[in-house]
Amino acid sequence: MKVLTFGEMMLRLKPPISGRILQTDQFEATYGGAEANVAVSLALQGDEAAFLTKFPDNLLGDAALSTLRKYGVDTSRIRRGGPRLGIYFFEKGASVRGTNVVYDRAGSAFATSKAHEYDWNQLFDGISHFYFSGITPAISAELQATVLAACKYCQAHNITVICDMNYRGKMWSPAAAQAFTKQVMPYVTVCIAHDEDFEASLGIQAFDGDMTNGIAQRDSFQAGMQEVIKRYPNVKMVASVLRNIYSVEDSQWTAMILSNGQFYNSPQYQMHVYEGVAGGDAFGAGLVHGILNHYELQDQVNYAIAASVLKLTISGDLNLVSEAEIKHVMATQGGSAMSR
Amino acid sequence: MKVLTFGEMMLRLKPPISGRILQTDQFEATYGGAEANVAVSLALQGDEAAFLTKFPDNLLGDAALSTLRKYGVDTSRIRRGGPRLGIYFFEKGASVRGTNVVYDRAGSAFATSKAHEYDWNQLFDGISHFYFSGITPAISAELQATVLAACKYCQAHNITVICDMNYRGKMWSPAAAQAFTKQVMPYVTVCIAHDEDFEASLGIQAFDGDMTNGIAQRDSFQAGMQEVIKRYPNVKMVASVLRNIYSVEDSQWTAMILSNGQFYNSPQYQMHVYEGVAGGDAFGAGLVHGILNHYELQDQVNYAIAASVLKLTISGDLNLVSEAEIKHVMATQGGSAMSR
Amino acid sequence: MKVLTFGEMMLRLKPPISGRILQTDQFEATYGGAEANVAVSLALQGDEAAFLTKFPDNLLGDAALSTLRKYGVDTSRIRRGGPRLGIYFFEKGASVRGTNVVYDRAGSAFATSKAHEYDWNQLFDGISHFYFSGITPAISAELQATVLAACKYCQAHNITVICDMNYRGKMWSPAAAQAFTKQVMPYVTVCIAHDEDFEASLGIQAFDGDMTNGIAQRDSFQAGMQEVIKRYPNVKMVASVLRNIYSVEDSQWTAMILSNGQFYNSPQYQMHVYEGVAGGDAFGAGLVHGILNHYELQDQVNYAIAASVLKLTISGDLNLVSEAEIKHVMATQGGSAMSR
Amino acid sequence: MKVLTFGEMMLRLKPPISGRILQTDQFEATYGGAEANVAVSLALQGDEAAFLTKFPDNLLGDAALSTLRKYGVDTSRIRRGGPRLGIYFFEKGASVRGTNVVYDRAGSAFATSKAHEYDWNQLFDGISHFYFSGITPAISAELQATVLAACKYCQAHNITVICDMNYRGKMWSPAAAQAFTKQVMPYVTVCIAHDEDFEASLGIQAFDGDMTNGIAQRDSFQAGMQEVIKRYPNVKMVASVLRNIYSVEDSQWTAMILSNGQFYNSPQYQMHVYEGVAGGDAFGAGLVHGILNHYELQDQVNYAIAASVLKLTISGDLNLVSEAEIKHVMATQGGSAMSR
Amino acid sequence: MKVLTFGEMMLRLKPPISGRILQTDQFEATYGGAEANVAVSLALQGDEAAFLTKFPDNLLGDAALSTLRKYGVDTSRIRRGGPRLGIYFFEKGASVRGTNVVYDRAGSAFATSKAHEYDWNQLFDGISHFYFSGITPAISAELQATVLAACKYCQAHNITVICDMNYRGKMWSPAAAQAFTKQVMPYVTVCIAHDEDFEASLGIQAFDGDMTNGIAQRDSFQAGMQEVIKRYPNVKMVASVLRNIYSVEDSQWTAMILSNGQFYNSPQYQMHVYEGVAGGDAFGAGLVHGILNHYELQDQVNYAIAASVLKLTISGDLNLVSEAEIKHVMATQGGSAMSR
Amino acid sequence: MKVLTFGEMMLRLKPPISGRILQTDQFEATYGGAEANVAVSLALQGDEAAFLTKFPDNLLGDAALSTLRKYGVDTSRIRRGGPRLGIYFFEKGASVRGTNVVYDRAGSAFATSKAHEYDWNQLFDGISHFYFSGITPAISAELQATVLAACKYCQAHNITVICDMNYRGKMWSPAAAQAFTKQVMPYVTVCIAHDEDFEASLGIQAFDGDMTNGIAQRDSFQAGMQEVIKRYPNVKMVASVLRNIYSVEDSQWTAMILSNGQFYNSPQYQMHVYEGVAGGDAFGAGLVHGILNHYELQDQVNYAIAASVLKLTISGDLNLVSEAEIKHVMATQGGSAMSR
Repeated sequence: MKVLTFGEMMLRLKPPISGRILQTDQFEATYGGAEANVAVSLALQGDEAAFLTKFPDNLLGDAALSTLRKYGVDTSRIRRGGPRLGIYFFEKGASVRGTNVVYDRAGSAFATSKAHEYDWNQLFDGISHFYFSGITPAISAELQATVLAACKYCQAHNITVICDMNYRGKMWSPAAAQAFTKQVMPYVTVCIAHDEDFEASLGIQAFDGDMTNGIAQRDSFQAGMQEVIKRYPNVKMVASVLRNIYSVEDSQWTAMILSNGQFYNSPQYQMHVYEGVAGGDAFGAGLVHGILNHYELQDQVNYAIAASVLKLTISGDLNLVSEAEIKHVMATQGGSAMSR
Repeated sequence: MKVLTFGEMMLRLKPPISGRILQTDQFEATYGGAEANVAVSLALQGDEAAFLTKFPDNLLGDAALSTLRKYGVDTSRIRRGGPRLGIYFFEKGASVRGTNVVYDRAGSAFATSKAHEYDWNQLFDGISHFYFSGITPAISAELQATVLAACKYCQAHNITVICDMNYRGKMWSPAAAQAFTKQVMPYVTVCIAHDEDFEASLGIQAFDGDMTNGIAQRDSFQAGMQEVIKRYPNVKMVASVLRNIYSVEDSQWTAMILSNGQFYNSPQYQMHVYEGVAGGDAFGAGLVHGILNHYELQDQVNYAIAASVLKLTISGDLNLVSEAEIKHVMATQGGSAMSR
Repeated sequence: MKVLTFGEMMLRLKPPISGRILQTDQFEATYGGAEANVAVSLALQGDEAAFLTKFPDNLLGDAALSTLRKYGVDTSRIRRGGPRLGIYFFEKGASVRGTNVVYDRAGSAFATSKAHEYDWNQLFDGISHFYFSGITPAISAELQATVLAACKYCQAHNITVICDMNYRGKMWSPAAAQAFTKQVMPYVTVCIAHDEDFEASLGIQAFDGDMTNGIAQRDSFQAGMQEVIKRYPNVKMVASVLRNIYSVEDSQWTAMILSNGQFYNSPQYQMHVYEGVAGGDAFGAGLVHGILNHYELQDQVNYAIAASVLKLTISGDLNLVSEAEIKHVMATQGGSAMSR
Repeated sequence: MKVLTFGEMMLRLKPPISGRILQTDQFEATYGGAEANVAVSLALQGDEAAFLTKFPDNLLGDAALSTLRKYGVDTSRIRRGGPRLGIYFFEKGASVRGTNVVYDRAGSAFATSKAHEYDWNQLFDGISHFYFSGITPAISAELQATVLAACKYCQAHNITVICDMNYRGKMWSPAAAQAFTKQVMPYVTVCIAHDEDFEASLGIQAFDGDMTNGIAQRDSFQAGMQEVIKRYPNVKMVASVLRNIYSVEDSQWTAMILSNGQFYNSPQYQMHVYEGVAGGDAFGAGLVHGILNHYELQDQVNYAIAASVLKLTISGDLNLVSEAEIKHVMATQGGSAMSR
Repeated sequence: MKVLTFGEMMLRLKPPISGRILQTDQFEATYGGAEANVAVSLALQGDEAAFLTKFPDNLLGDAALSTLRKYGVDTSRIRRGGPRLGIYFFEKGASVRGTNVVYDRAGSAFATSKAHEYDWNQLFDGISHFYFSGITPAISAELQATVLAACKYCQAHNITVICDMNYRGKMWSPAAAQAFTKQVMPYVTVCIAHDEDFEASLGIQAFDGDMTNGIAQRDSFQAGMQEVIKRYPNVKMVASVLRNIYSVEDSQWTAMILSNGQFYNSPQYQMHVYEGVAGGDAFGAGLVHGILNHYELQDQVNYAIAASVLKLTISGDLNLVSEAEIKHVMATQGGSAMSR
Repeated sequence: MKVLTFGEMMLRLKPPISGRILQTDQFEATYGGAEANVAVSLALQGDEAAFLTKFPDNLLGDAALSTLRKYGVDTSRIRRGGPRLGIYFFEKGASVRGTNVVYDRAGSAFATSKAHEYDWNQLFDGISHFYFSGITPAISAELQATVLAACKYCQAHNITVICDMNYRGKMWSPAAAQAFTKQVMPYVTVCIAHDEDFEASLGIQAFDGDMTNGIAQRDSFQAGMQEVIKRYPNVKMVASVLRNIYSVEDSQWTAMILSNGQFYNSPQYQMHVYEGVAGGDAFGAGLVHGILNHYELQDQVNYAIAASVLKLTISGDLNLVSEAEIKHVMATQGGSAMSR
C-alpha cells in the first residue's frame, strides 16, 4: 500500500510570530502545499508516501525537495526544471485580525508544467492510493486535464482516488471549480469537503458561510454529504470537518464521516490555535492513514480529527507528529498533562 | 485637511515575547509615543498627517525620524538638536503578571525643548486639526506653556483641537494634571477620556478604578461625559473606551461617544490581546479619521473601536493597519476567517 | 536564617516558542532543576540561600554555576569535577499537544557523585533550613543515602527539613519512591505534595489522577494531608497545590496548607500559562519565604500560590520575580493593569 | 536640482550571515535594486531624489515603497498595480565560495509594465537629472522603448542623463545589450562602466575578465574610456571602478574618471568586505552627488569611491551612510579608529 | 557503486557566531560526525551513500536521522534504541582564541552498542566501498572489534576499505590508536592521514606538530606516506592535507596523494575560514567521489582539496555543496566573483 | 589581596553583527564600563574583586548588578538609587567604516551621585588595591573630588592605587583631564597610558596620533613613560599598549612596561579583531592580575597583552576568559589549533 499525492509545494514566507509584512525584516522559511503536507503526514505516521510535482532546477527547488526527503517522503517521481518555485506569504493574524495569505505562485515550474510531462504508467508504479486536492486543478487548465488523466488511469488500474475539495477563492471561481468537479467526481472514492467546499466546489448547499457557527449546522452538513453520494454513487466515503472559528486563537473543531449510509461523529475539541493552517490537510492524511491501516470507521474519524487539531499546535504547513502522538490525543481527547 | 500632532516619540526597548529585563540579552527596538502613534495611524489610513517634536541630532534621532517617514508622516516640521532621545523599556507581562513600563525619558531633546523653538505661525501652515495628549504637558512646565500657546493659536485661526487626556501617573500628579486641564479645555473641541482620565485629569468621578469591570459602569461614564460638556461647552464631542481587563491576554473592549447631546455605543469586542499598548492612540486616530472623512457619528465610534482593537493584535506602538482592514473588522465585528 | 537546597541543576534545551525538536535548528539554553530553582527564588525574594550540587569542571559547569551566582545564590558549597552536566530537552506543547520532556541526565557529575563527597558538618555551617525534593533521591541509591545522612544531621542540629515530594515517573517507580519516603519522612518538618505525589511517593490515596479536575477533589486532598500528619507526627505543615489543567495554556490553580490541625485555602487563579514548568518549585520557595519571614499561615499559602502562578508567566525554570511583585499579585489576585 | 532614477526594486531574501538556502529556515528581508539604491543613497546624502517604478498593489508593494520613504526618497511618482513584486535570493558566499544570486523577477509588476503607463511629461516635472542602469532595459523590450522615450524627453528638456552600464549576464546577452546601448548612448551625458561592462554592453575591449587583477589594467581601462567618448562625443564624463577581488572578503578598490580629456584617479582601498553587493550603485550615487554639489573633479572620484567602499561594509543593498561619513572616509582614506 | 560509512552522528551545540558558552542563552543545533559528514557529502555530490550507526529511539534520534535523510543519505541500515544521542559543544574561536570542543558523547546509543547488533552480511548488501575514521574505534573496545569484523567481511567480499586516521587526543592515547591501527591497516585500501595522525595513529614521524607550518614539511609528509605503503603494501593510496593554520580565520591549505608510487600535489588555497571544522571529512568525501567516478589521480587530489576548502566556508559539520560547485572552485582555484 | 574598582557600568546597546542603528530593529544588550570590565576580568581570573558604583533602583539596575554577580564580582558595596542607568549605543563598524559610540550617559545614577554617598572608611574594608580609570573623573566634578578623596584614603592606609588614563574626547577636554591628572597622580602607584592618553591626560608628547602606526613609535612611547616617572616619582610602574590599527578587523598589538628603570616588551600579535572594544581594560586587569600574583615583570607584560588581545575575540565589554586561557595564548603567542 503506497499513496501518491500530486500537487504544488511552495516556499512559505512568514514574518516571525504574528508580525506584519510591513514591519518585518525577516521571514521564517518553510515549504508546504496541500498535497505535500499530506505526503509528509503519511510518511511521519509510518505509511509509504510519494509526492509528485515539478520543482525548478535551482537552489529553491533543492530546498523544497530536501524538506520532503527529511520527513521520509519518496521524492523519486518529482520532475525538475521550469522557471521558479511558487511562493506564498503568510501573515499570521491575531485575535480579530485575520490571517492573511498573499500568493506569489503564478508562473511556477509546477503551474507551467505540461500534461505530457506526467507519464502515469510509470508514475503509478507501485501505488495503491492517489490523493489530490482542488488546489491542483485550480492552478491551470493543463493541470485539470492532467488530474483527469491520472484519475482515469486509477480507475483502470484499481487505484483508489481520494479528493479533498479544498476550494480557494483566490485561485478560481465557484463556476470553474464546479465544472471541473463534475468531471472528476465519477473517479473519486473518498471525498473530503469542508464548509464552503460544498457550495463552491460541489454546488451543494450545506453551510451558510458563518465560520463562527459551523458546528450547529451538522444537519445541513449531513444532508450535503448524502447529496454527494446520491450524485456520485462511486463515492464510498464523504468526510467533513465542522468548526466554530471565533478568532485566530480560539475555535472548536469536530468531524464527521458518512460511509455505508451511516454517520460517524468525532469528539469535539476546544482549541487554543497556535497556527491555523493546514488543519484540513492533516485531517485528510489522518483519514487516509486510517483507511490504509483498516481502522474501524469510528476510529477513522476520531483519529483524523485528532491529527487535524494537533496540526493547529504546530508551526509551518507540515503536521510533524507521529501516529503514537495522534493516538495519545485521540485517547485523552485533548487533556495535556506534561510527560516527564 | 491635515492633522498636526505634537508630542514625544521615544525609542522603545522590549525583551522578546514576554521576557523579563533581568533575563534578556536582546531588546526589540521600535519607536513610539502617543502623538506619533496617532500621526502614523492617520497616514496609514490615507490622511494627511504631520508630527511635531524635537529629536536629537544623532543616529537615534535619525532612526526615530525615519520610522515616521516610513509610514508616510510629514516630518518636515520636526526640530533637531538637544541632548538625547527619550527611551522607555517595555516589559510585556503575561496572564497575572502585568506589563511593566520603565521610563527613561528625562532630559530628552523634546523634554528640554523651549517654547520659543516652536513658531506656531509657521508650524500650523496648512493644518486644519491639532492633536495632542496629556502626556505632552506632563513632560515639563515649558511644554504646558507651549501647548497652551498652540491651542490659543488654533482658536484664533479656526484649527480644531483634539485632546486625549491620557493620564500617566508616573509622570505627574492628578493635581498637576487637573490644573493644566482646566487651562487647556476651553480650547478643545474633541475630548477623549478613558477610565482613570476622568478623575485624574478632569477631576470628574466616572470610573471606580476597577479595570476588570469598566464596561458595567457605562452609566457613570455617561454622566462623566455629560459633565465634561457641561463644564466646557466648547467641547463638541467626548469619546471614551470602556474595558474589562481580566489579564494581559484577556479583555473586552467597547467605546462610546457623546455628541450633539446623544450617546453612540460601539459593539463590544472579546479580545485575545497580543500587545496591550497604544490601543487608546489607535482609538484617537480612528476617531479623527472618521471626523476628517465625515463619517456618521455611529460609524465614527464603530470605526474608532475597530481601529483600537486591531492595535491590540500588533507588536509595537504603531497601529500598522489600513482603512480597509479597519473597515473589515468593523463590518465583521471580529470574525476572522483566513483570507486565501 | 539561611536555606540550603540540595539537588541537580541541568542545562535545559528548548526549541523556540512551541517548536518541535524535529524542526528546530536552535535551542534556547537555560539552566534549572527543582532545588536550584528554589534557591534562586529565595535569593531573588531577599532570603539567604545556598545551593549544593556537583558540577563538572568544564565550560558547562561554569555556565550553570554562574547562573546561580547571577541571581544571588551562595555557590560556595558546590562541588566541581566528574563527567558531565545533566541535560534535559524541553519541548513546550500547545493546546492539546502536551509538553514533552526528554531527560539526558544519566551519568552526570551529580548523578555519579558519592556520599563521602558531602561533608555535612562543613556544608551545614550557618544553615537553618534544608530543602530537597524527591528528584534528588530518585537519581541514585547513593544520593538516597546522602539525603538521609543530611536529614539525620539536620535533626541532630536543629535544622528544619523541607521536602517536596516531586514524584517523577520517568525517574523511579512508586515502589522505590515510597520505600525512600518512609525512611526520610521522620526527619521532615514541612512536607509539600501535589497531585500524584500523594499516591506515588507517600502511598496515600488523595487524587484520582485526572489533571483536568484536581480542584474539585479538595476533600480527598485534605484527607490525604491529614493522613501525612497522622503517619508522621513530626511534620508540622503539609502544603499542596490543586489544579485543573485543561490544556497547555489554560488552567486553574489554588493551594492549601494544613498546619496546627487547620486548613488554609488560597484564592484560585485562572491562568493563561506562558510556560507551565517549575510552578511547584516556585510554590515551595514561596512557602519557605513565608516561613522564614514569619508570615501568618493564611498569608503563607496566599503568598506561595501567588509566587507559583507568577512562575507560569515566565520563561525558563527560574521564577524571576521579587517579593514585591509576588505581593502585588497576592494583593490584586491577578488583576493585571499596566503600570506606566 | 532633483534626480529621478528609474528601475526595479525587489524583495531581497538572504539566509543569515553566510548560510546556504539549503540549510536555512529564515531569510533576512530587505528591498533593493540598482536604481532604487541610487535614489536612497542620494536622499541620505541630502540630495533631492525620486524613484520611479511600478509596484504591485499588495503588502509586498507597500513594504518596498515604505522602505524608500523611510530613507527620504520621493515616492510620489511610483505606479501601483500589476502581478507581483520581483524577488531575488542572495546567498552570500565566504572565502572561495562565491556569492550566488537566484533571480525570481520574471512577471513582476515592473517587468510587465507598459510604456504608456509612464507619462514622461508629468514624471519629469521638477527633475534635473535622470539616472538608470543597464538592468532596466535588460528586463523587457517594452522597458527598452520606455527608457529611450525618457532619454529623448530629457534631451529635449535639458535634463542630464546618467547611465550605469551595469551588465547582467543572467538577464540578457552582450549582443542584446550592445544593440540597446548603441541606441541610448547618444542621449547620455555621464557614462559609468566597470569591468565586463565595457565589452558586454559597449563592445569595447578594456578588461581581460580576470576579476583578481583589474587594477593592473588601468591602461586598457583608460583606452576604453577614451573610446567611449570618441564614439559618443555627447558623453561628458566616463567613470569606472577598478578592482582586484581575491575572495569574498578580500579585495582592493580604486576608481577613475575621464572628463574634459583628463583622467582623475582616486586613492586605492584595501577592503575587508562585509557584503559585496551594490558597491557600483553606491559609486554611481556618490558620483551624482559630487556632480549635483559641484565638487572638483578630483573630489568627485575620491568621494564616489569612498561612498562605494563604505557600501561594502553595510548589510543590504542600500548604502546607509551620510555625506559626512563618506567625507570622513575620503579624508582618512580608510583609517578607522573608534569614535568615542 | 555504493558507499557505507560507519560511525557516530552527534547533536552539535554551538553558541551563535563566535560566542562563548558562558555568555550564550542560545545554541545553534546541527548534527554531525566524521563518517556521517562523509555520507552526506557523497549523497550531495550525487553518489549512493548509506550511513550506519545506532540512534536512540527518541526525538533526538529522530532529528539526527531526518538530517541524513534530508540530504539524501540511505538511512535504512541505522539501528535504533539505547540510551542517548551523543552531543558535542562547539565554541568557535576567533583570531588567537582557538576553537574549543567539549565532548558529551559518553554513554550514547552508539558508544554502548554491541558488535552483535551489526549483521555485516545484511548490512553490506549492495555496498562496494566501506568508509570509517579513527573516531569510531576510539569510542569503545567493542567498536574496535566491530570495525575489524567489518573489515574482514570487506576483504572476503571484495569491498574497498577507506580509512581516515582522524586521531582525537581527547578520545584515546597514541598507544591505543596505534595498537588498533596495526590490526586494521592490513584491510585498508585507501589511507587518509593528516598532520599528527601520522605519529599518533600510525607511529610514523612525518610532521613536527607545528600547525602554523605544515606545508613546508612536504618532504617529511612524503616520506611518511611512503612508509605507510611500505608497511602495508595492501594500501593503494595514501592521501594527506597539509596546512598552515595561522589563526582561526587565516590559513593555507593544500593536499597530496601517493598512488602507484607517484605523488600528486594539489594547488594551494589561501583561506579566510568561516568555520574550521570537518574539512578533513570533506576531503575524504571528495577523494572517495573521485575514486567512485574514476577521476584521473591529479583530478582526484584537486577535487578533494577543493571540496575540503569549500567546507571551511560553510556553517555546520556538513559540506553542503554540489559536485558542480566543487568543480567550479577546482577550475578557478578560488577566484570568487559573484554570479548574477 | 582584594581589588576595588570604581566607575560606571552602563547598558550597552548594539545592533547585531555590524548593523547600523538606522536599519536595526533589535539591539544586543550587554552591560559594561571600564572599571566594571576590570572587576569582572579579575574575578574570572580567580582574583578577589569588588566593584563600586551607584545603580538606579529599577529593573535596569538589577540587570547590571546581576551581570557583575554572574561573573563573581563582589557587589556588596554598590549603592542603589538615583535617576537612571547610563546607556551607550555601540555601532560596530566594518573595514573602513569605523566603530561608532553614541553616549547616553548623562543624568545617570552614578553621574549624579554625591561624594558623601561614598564612605571610604567602610568601602575600603578588606581592600588592598584600588583601580579607576580616567573615565570616572570625566563624568562630573563631584566624581573628581570623590576619586581624590579615595586616593588620599588609599595613601593613608597603604592601599595601592592603579590608574588607567583612558582619555575620552567625547567626555572632557585635554585641559580638564590634565588638570585632574595633576592632582591625582601623586597618589598613583601603577599608571597605565596608551596612545593619545599621554598627551591628552598627562600633557606628555609620546604619540603622533596616527593609529595606523603606533608600534613604530616605541621610542617616543618610552620617552613618555620615563617622563611620567620623572614627574611623579611615586609611580612604580608605567604600562602601555602600542597598536597599528589598519581597519576595524585588522590590527597589530604589543605592550611595554617600565618598572625599576627597565623596559619589558611583550611579543606582538597580528589580530583579526572580532570586537575592538575594552582591550585596554582587559590589559589593565591582566596587569593587575600579574601584580597580585607576583608574576615576573616580563611575564606581567606578556600576560597582560595576551589578556588584552583575547578580549578582541569576544563579544561585549567583558573579557570572558580564564587565567588558563590567557596563559595558553601567552605560551603559544597566538597559534590557535582546535582542541578536540
